Amino acid sequence: MYKLGLIGYGYWGPNLLRNFSAQKDAAVMAVADGRLDRLEGVRKNYPSIMTMQNAEELIDIKEIDAVVIATPVHSHYQLAKKALLAGKHVLIEKPMTSSVGDAEELTNLADSRGLVLMVDHTFLYTGAVSKIKELIDADIIGKPKYFDSARINLGLFQPDVNVLWDLAPHDLSMLLYLVDEKPFSVNATGISHTHNGIENIAYMTVNYESDFIAHFNCSWTSPVKVRQTLIGGDRKMIVYNDLEPSEKVRVYDTGYDHKTDEDKNRLLVDYRTGDIQIPKLSPKEALSGVAEDFLSSIATKKQPLASARLGLKVVQLLDAAQKSIKNKGKEIIIH
Amino acid sequence: MYKLGLIGYGYWGPNLLRNFSAQKDAAVMAVADGRLDRLEGVRKNYPSIMTMQNAEELIDIKEIDAVVIATPVHSHYQLAKKALLAGKHVLIEKPMTSSVGDAEELTNLADSRGLVLMVDHTFLYTGAVSKIKELIDADIIGKPKYFDSARINLGLFQPDVNVLWDLAPHDLSMLLYLVDEKPFSVNATGISHTHNGIENIAYMTVNYESDFIAHFNCSWTSPVKVRQTLIGGDRKMIVYNDLEPSEKVRVYDTGYDHKTDEDKNRLLVDYRTGDIQIPKLSPKEALSGVAEDFLSSIATKKQPLASARLGLKVVQLLDAAQKSIKNKGKEIIIH
Amino acid sequence: MYKLGLIGYGYWGPNLLRNFSAQKDAAVMAVADGRLDRLEGVRKNYPSIMTMQNAEELIDIKEIDAVVIATPVHSHYQLAKKALLAGKHVLIEKPMTSSVGDAEELTNLADSRGLVLMVDHTFLYTGAVSKIKELIDADIIGKPKYFDSARINLGLFQPDVNVLWDLAPHDLSMLLYLVDEKPFSVNATGISHTHNGIENIAYMTVNYESDFIAHFNCSWTSPVKVRQTLIGGDRKMIVYNDLEPSEKVRVYDTGYDHKTDEDKNRLLVDYRTGDIQIPKLSPKEALSGVAEDFLSSIATKKQPLASARLGLKVVQLLDAAQKSIKNKGKEIIIH
Amino acid sequence: MYKLGLIGYGYWGPNLLRNFSAQKDAAVMAVADGRLDRLEGVRKNYPSIMTMQNAEELIDIKEIDAVVIATPVHSHYQLAKKALLAGKHVLIEKPMTSSVGDAEELTNLADSRGLVLMVDHTFLYTGAVSKIKELIDADIIGKPKYFDSARINLGLFQPDVNVLWDLAPHDLSMLLYLVDEKPFSVNATGISHTHNGIENIAYMTVNYESDFIAHFNCSWTSPVKVRQTLIGGDRKMIVYNDLEPSEKVRVYDTGYDHKTDEDKNRLLVDYRTGDIQIPKLSPKEALSGVAEDFLSSIATKKQPLASARLGLKVVQLLDAAQKSIKNKGKEIIIH
Repeated sequence: MYKLGLIGYGYWGPNLLRNFSAQKDAAVMAVADGRLDRLEGVRKNYPSIMTMQNAEELIDIKEIDAVVIATPVHSHYQLAKKALLAGKHVLIEKPMTSSVGDAEELTNLADSRGLVLMVDHTFLYTGAVSKIKELIDADIIGKPKYFDSARINLGLFQPDVNVLWDLAPHDLSMLLYLVDEKPFSVNATGISHTHNGIENIAYMTVNYESDFIAHFNCSWTSPVKVRQTLIGGDRKMIVYNDLEPSEKVRVYDTGYDHKTDEDKNRLLVDYRTGDIQIPKLSPKEALSGVAEDFLSSIATKKQPLASARLGLKVVQLLDAAQKSIKNKGKEIIIH
Repeated sequence: MYKLGLIGYGYWGPNLLRNFSAQKDAAVMAVADGRLDRLEGVRKNYPSIMTMQNAEELIDIKEIDAVVIATPVHSHYQLAKKALLAGKHVLIEKPMTSSVGDAEELTNLADSRGLVLMVDHTFLYTGAVSKIKELIDADIIGKPKYFDSARINLGLFQPDVNVLWDLAPHDLSMLLYLVDEKPFSVNATGISHTHNGIENIAYMTVNYESDFIAHFNCSWTSPVKVRQTLIGGDRKMIVYNDLEPSEKVRVYDTGYDHKTDEDKNRLLVDYRTGDIQIPKLSPKEALSGVAEDFLSSIATKKQPLASARLGLKVVQLLDAAQKSIKNKGKEIIIH
Repeated sequence: MYKLGLIGYGYWGPNLLRNFSAQKDAAVMAVADGRLDRLEGVRKNYPSIMTMQNAEELIDIKEIDAVVIATPVHSHYQLAKKALLAGKHVLIEKPMTSSVGDAEELTNLADSRGLVLMVDHTFLYTGAVSKIKELIDADIIGKPKYFDSARINLGLFQPDVNVLWDLAPHDLSMLLYLVDEKPFSVNATGISHTHNGIENIAYMTVNYESDFIAHFNCSWTSPVKVRQTLIGGDRKMIVYNDLEPSEKVRVYDTGYDHKTDEDKNRLLVDYRTGDIQIPKLSPKEALSGVAEDFLSSIATKKQPLASARLGLKVVQLLDAAQKSIKNKGKEIIIH
Repeated sequence: MYKLGLIGYGYWGPNLLRNFSAQKDAAVMAVADGRLDRLEGVRKNYPSIMTMQNAEELIDIKEIDAVVIATPVHSHYQLAKKALLAGKHVLIEKPMTSSVGDAEELTNLADSRGLVLMVDHTFLYTGAVSKIKELIDADIIGKPKYFDSARINLGLFQPDVNVLWDLAPHDLSMLLYLVDEKPFSVNATGISHTHNGIENIAYMTVNYESDFIAHFNCSWTSPVKVRQTLIGGDRKMIVYNDLEPSEKVRVYDTGYDHKTDEDKNRLLVDYRTGDIQIPKLSPKEALSGVAEDFLSSIATKKQPLASARLGLKVVQLLDAAQKSIKNKGKEIIIH
């Protein structure tokens, strides 16, 4: 039975608390949040849980094995570092940190101490993404050729990070999870309609050494909500529409083969369209899978799907995109 | 009564012939196409029209006032130049030419000779785009802030031009028609899955000196067909879905205002969502509007909506996008 | 401040409790349910509320002004009668009762005692139905001509009532609320695939003395979920799709006029299609409106929208439909 | 090589002419239509075809083997009878005739003379219906349990027949083609908003001796166009949406099993939902299949899919529906 502490009880905290409380091999022992009214909410629904305003006080509790950090991004690094130094396993909200250096330091720290450090990239645990991963791993769609995502709506303008840092972590974590190849570089463009240097519309391309390409369209200023990802393989193609209540993933038996006619130096392309399959997806709540993976990673000393290394790569891509936007769309190489 | 000659009777030629034949003040006198079976098709349906294999022969016919060129893009420049030099008004298929220099030369030639030179950017004459233009001009949507277009499907790979030259002219002509400001620069990225240097997926951003931004997503390798354009103003926003049979244009009373709280240096954003309006659109065939505008431009010596100057700007943007792709997404300034 | 008792804490009970608890001028004093685990749920979330297994015990509490009955339909009559005889105002779940006689008796009893008797036809309090009512009352759609509803999905088979008693009360209450004219008769057909006399698919027509017509398509055995109502007026027509997250109501400026050409005894019909309007709807929770209307009806001695008389008419129509099905679709007159 | 004559060159005639002209083993020799301008259209596009105003003159042409009748329904019987008596094979537009007696007489006449009599129920030859038939025959969906169709739009009011005679023949022919069991009876209701006894909205149930049921919703006065058919089997269910450009048929692995718990006399239902399959359909033009089937039925003396007997049953069902509407929805037995 692992004892857990939760830091931050804002929008996402209650979901984390509910899901970790439902795990058989874990008990949430304490919750920290600076706001008294938020702590009141914890006490009302979970009278046996200790509450406190000070996060460091929570980290200092000896009996706590693992800490879940659900605070604004700028505080992730300090809190996670303290928790790791105190010997606790750590689960952090996405994005992991606001700088690549911080993410690297945390990743190395966890490694050197033999602690689990995981990032809550919840989407990796959805029925939809699990099914897509399964289709790719079973070579159903063939070699992946592109990933094209739109995540747009009339969204809350964030005061400190641009629309990519706000929305793209979902899609970038999926990309990194689903596609094995290492990203080579990033180009990005965008605009700030609030004239404060924080883009509310941004476009991001991730380039690879192979002929794979990924593109991300993010906006807080769309009149319609779109959550759509196209994943094209050389055998089949997938359309993942997260707004569909029960038909999120569609697999198209659609493709083309090409060859060059040697005599005539001409391109010959064969097109093919066949059936469409809409697989039934697991209805399990994704965050419950996050909790399970975190706990079993602690128990078995394995890396979770949403590992620190994956979370670090997400930060690298976001950082590169921001650099590219500020440099007129220039290609930024990922190291 | 103007006498017209049509050069090229391939995919689009029959539509041009049918629409020009239906005009009261015009008669198509001759059609030229190198392929005998295509000419046979003309003679069967229009027995009174002269047919010939040689385009120059057609241009040499004295009685012909205007020439319509519907051949592959690489031949546009030579044919249009000959026709202009022979004193004919000219309508060319889009894109106007395959280089900026050629388009400039044709535009100047037409100007200096007092001839109409028009490009068949058919979309400008659709009921949908006319309505959107009307909404912008009447200041219904407020100041335009962004233009975001996706034109993707499992499309024919072109052997000589990339997916932007194939698909984006529609969207670029709309952008130039609808938004008054001059584009400042272009960034673009893309990939060629056929490894012949011809991109089948490409993304293009058009930047402006103001805070307006435009983005284009084009692909020949999508399992689903998408033809969607978002046009956001600071008062209302438009979603134009060209695949909708009767509800192509939707006007959202959606928006946000922002100000900076001076004391706290904090961004305050007010969101607003209201009714959605789906205006009834003119059902008139767009190509019939093209024919009318060409003929009335000749008659009244006015510039058509789809003027040579607009067609030239489309070519400039395509050329800049191609340069950007070949230069790793670098910003290319439009002069 | 009214004191309320709630009888039945199954599927809908928690929603009723939450909404009544949020009302300023009411307090839920007691909850009765035969199942101990359900009562446990009440005590956990509302420690100050009295709980008991026996409904009659609750009705006997002197301080209670009004009783909310959310039990299976077969027990509605007995419980409501006891509560009315004890001088309590009553809100009953829909359908009001399982027989016309019972509904009449309750309605008369409440009238004679000067008590409010209301049926929880929640849909009347949705933003969508409020807007449609407003459009009809303001004569925007003209004279109503038809009401056509489909409410189908893969639903739970009820053990004691057919699919009309389960699903149609929503649509029948809307019909009665929106359309002023008294129904004249009912025809219905259906089938029981479980061979127990309980139809899982049924179709019902409500006829009127005027040329208005209403039709209802209900099924527990559809692979797709549909919640769609068409309401046609002689000026405009409404499509109400309850599954749309934010665009539930669409108003079509669509219609036709007809006249008979006197000389030729020929029908002349003029068709018209114009804009479509999608009005913004109130996001308020419908059940909160139910609670407010119940309490203010008690306070001001007015009839609620979802009055006993409306609830009685719903039962009359359901009863007539059942009779028609059992009599091979024969017309059953509504008295 | 069969020689054909076509009577009637209105809305559908040109499609018939084009498709029969494209058949290898047939030549259309003559076209008859009372309207000179329609005949002019034939001569322009098919200069070698004889034209005439008088249909009887066409029937009298000895060389003609088969006659295609595409005139208004009231003239079908007289023309078809003459053609059959003259020894010609006959293809008639749907519905076959306007009375059951006429349809029976024609069917018997064709039988006794050994001639092919076929009705142009084009839908039976679509890729969608062929695929559904294949799925039923291969026992993929299990035993059919229901057929539920909606065919509504803002349609042309017919001056002489109601909306069922106009729209339902498509759906009734599908029902008869797909489901083997003989219909037992019909109930129908409807309304005439033009007050001329011709219903513009009508609902029709077809009952069977087994627990299969079919229902049809037809309207000329819907603001939205719907063409949707649900076909439920006890193993899978099909949704056929004819307005979908490329995804017309969806097969749901959805169902339920039921049994009665013997001890408790309680109904137990198990629900199941699985993948959805969208099969690729043949893109072949349906009318070309009609032409082929007619010609090969003549050649091989077989019955076509859209046989006279099927066409007669469609007329029987329409006639029963009309009787039911005029008798307040009363059940009409099919003999």
